[in-house]
Amino acid sequence: MAQKPSIPKGTRDFPPVEMARRDYIFETIRTVFKKYGYSPIETPAMENLSTLLGKYGEEGDKLLFKVLNSGDAFSGVTADMLGNSNSLSLKVCEKGLRYDLTVPFARFVVQHQNELTFPFKRYQIQPVWRADRPQKGRYREFYQCDVDVVGSRSLLNELELVQIVDEIFGMFGIKVLVKINNRKILTGIAEVIGKPEKLTDITVAIDKIDKIGLDAVKQELNEKGLTTADVSVIEPILTLSGTTAQKVEVMKGVLSTSKAGLAGLDEITELFGLIETVAVNCSVELDLSLARGLNYYTGAIFEVKALETEMGSISGGGRYDDLTGIFGLPDVPGVGISFGADRIYDVLLALDKFPGSAGSAAKVLFSNLGVDEVKYSLPIIKAVRETGVSAELYPDNSKMKKQFDYADKKGIPYFAIIGADEVSAGKVSLKNLKSGEQKSLNVSELVTLLKAVD
Amino acid sequence: MAQKPSIPKGTRDFPPVEMARRDYIFETIRTVFKKYGYSPIETPAMENLSTLLGKYGEEGDKLLFKVLNSGDAFSGVTADMLGNSNSLSLKVCEKGLRYDLTVPFARFVVQHQNELTFPFKRYQIQPVWRADRPQKGRYREFYQCDVDVVGSRSLLNELELVQIVDEIFGMFGIKVLVKINNRKILTGIAEVIGKPEKLTDITVAIDKIDKIGLDAVKQELNEKGLTTADVSVIEPILTLSGTTAQKVEVMKGVLSTSKAGLAGLDEITELFGLIETVAVNCSVELDLSLARGLNYYTGAIFEVKALETEMGSISGGGRYDDLTGIFGLPDVPGVGISFGADRIYDVLLALDKFPGSAGSAAKVLFSNLGVDEVKYSLPIIKAVRETGVSAELYPDNSKMKKQFDYADKKGIPYFAIIGADEVSAGKVSLKNLKSGEQKSLNVSELVTLLKAVD
Repeated sequence: MAQKPSIPKGTRDFPPVEMARRDYIFETIRTVFKKYGYSPIETPAMENLSTLLGKYGEEGDKLLFKVLNSGDAFSGVTADMLGNSNSLSLKVCEKGLRYDLTVPFARFVVQHQNELTFPFKRYQIQPVWRADRPQKGRYREFYQCDVDVVGSRSLLNELELVQIVDEIFGMFGIKVLVKINNRKILTGIAEVIGKPEKLTDITVAIDKIDKIGLDAVKQELNEKGLTTADVSVIEPILTLSGTTAQKVEVMKGVLSTSKAGLAGLDEITELFGLIETVAVNCSVELDLSLARGLNYYTGAIFEVKALETEMGSISGGGRYDDLTGIFGLPDVPGVGISFGADRIYDVLLALDKFPGSAGSAAKVLFSNLGVDEVKYSLPIIKAVRETGVSAELYPDNSKMKKQFDYADKKGIPYFAIIGADEVSAGKVSLKNLKSGEQKSLNVSELVTLLKAVD
Repeated sequence: MAQKPSIPKGTRDFPPVEMARRDYIFETIRTVFKKYGYSPIETPAMENLSTLLGKYGEEGDKLLFKVLNSGDAFSGVTADMLGNSNSLSLKVCEKGLRYDLTVPFARFVVQHQNELTFPFKRYQIQPVWRADRPQKGRYREFYQCDVDVVGSRSLLNELELVQIVDEIFGMFGIKVLVKINNRKILTGIAEVIGKPEKLTDITVAIDKIDKIGLDAVKQELNEKGLTTADVSVIEPILTLSGTTAQKVEVMKGVLSTSKAGLAGLDEITELFGLIETVAVNCSVELDLSLARGLNYYTGAIFEVKALETEMGSISGGGRYDDLTGIFGLPDVPGVGISFGADRIYDVLLALDKFPGSAGSAAKVLFSNLGVDEVKYSLPIIKAVRETGVSAELYPDNSKMKKQFDYADKKGIPYFAIIGADEVSAGKVSLKNLKSGEQKSLNVSELVTLLKAVD
């Protein structure tokens, strides 16, 4: 019996219409990355598990897809090893699928450090895999679009990322708010309440404020060992309003005893000053409750929200000071931002912002009404294609209705009909399938018209 | 201790220069595919192993990368199962990485048959994975670029594939020979010697003629159970010379008793007639010794060789009549061809045919000589980028030599120097790093010049 075909849960096929839309997204992002001087790299889908393990926390380790060693993976496995599933899986699997683009990038920088020119500006658009429980909008295979610069501490890099965000979403026609914070401010807060060791707990808790609200964040902070007095230091920070300058002024008071905190505020002031110089179109806001979960951030952190939909973050990133340290190359600072292609896809769809051309097939379909007609058509089709116009010849001598339907279903806008009459007259009948209008043209008229129409 | 970073054997990182060259290859191929009305699809990296197993022969099954089930993969595994490594691996792994694009495509067509418009013309450019022993030019992760049309028996599809090959390699500037044969002719030969069951043995043996020579092929045919008389029927076929028409004439005599063989010859005659109609630039040749290993081919088979290097086949494919049958959809004929990106890369490199632009970075680097100079520069850089010109600002206020070296190493052709003098004069000093020439320009002159130069 034939198998009923299916694909692993959490994965997707992309048929032509989805592909065209995704290509539009990737191509837009890629164009902007290039315009700012970022170069593409790619890394293998499989990395050594030793590269990946321990980089994403305990939960992340569990979500890695492991690849069984080739050859006889189980030779040397004995019955007593069956008791420890985790260590057994590491014995029989030396490789795993990449979980994000950041760790492979750090590995890449260290491995190729002598070939690279620093500051190294790279972008990377590739799929990643996570054994997450699939649910709406969460997949086990999805694309990330990352842009990073490593080897420079200058805040001009942060500025550039804001400009890139502004330009990309401007091209998409998506109105966005860029939220900015600085991890040093969060460090300062932990210092001021005298509990620097609670930094992670604090950031994890306040990161949730948009989702769970102020009261629940306060409760979580209490549960994590902060006193009511501690929480009262943090509370006004989370609800601060006013201009950036006003917020910074208030915070300078709160963080007056923390060197890190004041440094963070200085960086914020400098970055917002630079952003003013270039006059971006998007909204940019200092959000002191922005924490972002990842522990490797050390300076600026970013998050981008679409203003006209409820979609959560569609882009985010930040500065890290020692991402490559774990692979043996300390003191390589970097900053980067990641664009979520799936979220952007959903926003563009919800706001009906995909351009009409994304998804279009050939511009013209040539009929197939018999051997002689086709032989007459072939050089004409060749001439059309030579001008760069995409053209199809219907391969089978089927009924006209079927050929029409084919053009219609594929969204091909023109149908070139070549029957015995056209052959003997040296003409082509070109039908505009939208308007229904039909013209009799000679070859050079046809080529000119098809080249000119949109 | 820090880990020394490495990647799994047989896999590769692609740094910017290689990426730019690969993008040039993919973009060229993609442009031509689109011009002929083919639409892109993508399928997941992981397929269910049930989809993949048994499709590539026993050897292929061994070369599949298997992915360990997520969660506790070894629960339910008992000591007695350790004896059978193969069945155990299938118990703990339900998924595998795709081995080629053909089987996932067949699965895709069956799964989405009700959404697709037939004839369905698709292209697919994605990596595949094989646990082959890595060696020079053979990798465990590599890209395939496949183009197929399913749902049509017309030889116009074969013609179109030849045109696509002609156009792609024409754009690359690679002179190629397209070898064409037809599996029905090979079937006819097996029938004529009265051993139709030996078809596979015969095709496998004669497929090797370029590598091992005529005598070794004859010996292999003997070993596979063909008599000296049988082999003498095959021998002249392998060494036939003359025009296509002459070869066909001779073969009509040899295959006069085989319906399949004569049908194959008719198809060859028709296809070569069509090719003449469109006047391709590449060489096209009937090669009766061309067999191609894959058993699913049933009609035309193609192989493309670069004429100016010894690189083996750089593209190949053929017609198949029942690829989707195994997934429950019989009688869907198709024909396709695959382009080997790695081989094409090597040929382009060997023949020095990569365009100079493949690998180029930004067009201009702006100097960073201090805070005020940068603030003066930022709107200028923005104006340059707005014309579509790729521009970088050096992020750190480093020594000029370092900034120069950066532009030089990255191959950035222009260096825009903005110091205190330029700021007070409202000018930009633009240095052409190739010629050494330096000009003092106002902003609109700068923008115009950078936009205009190549």
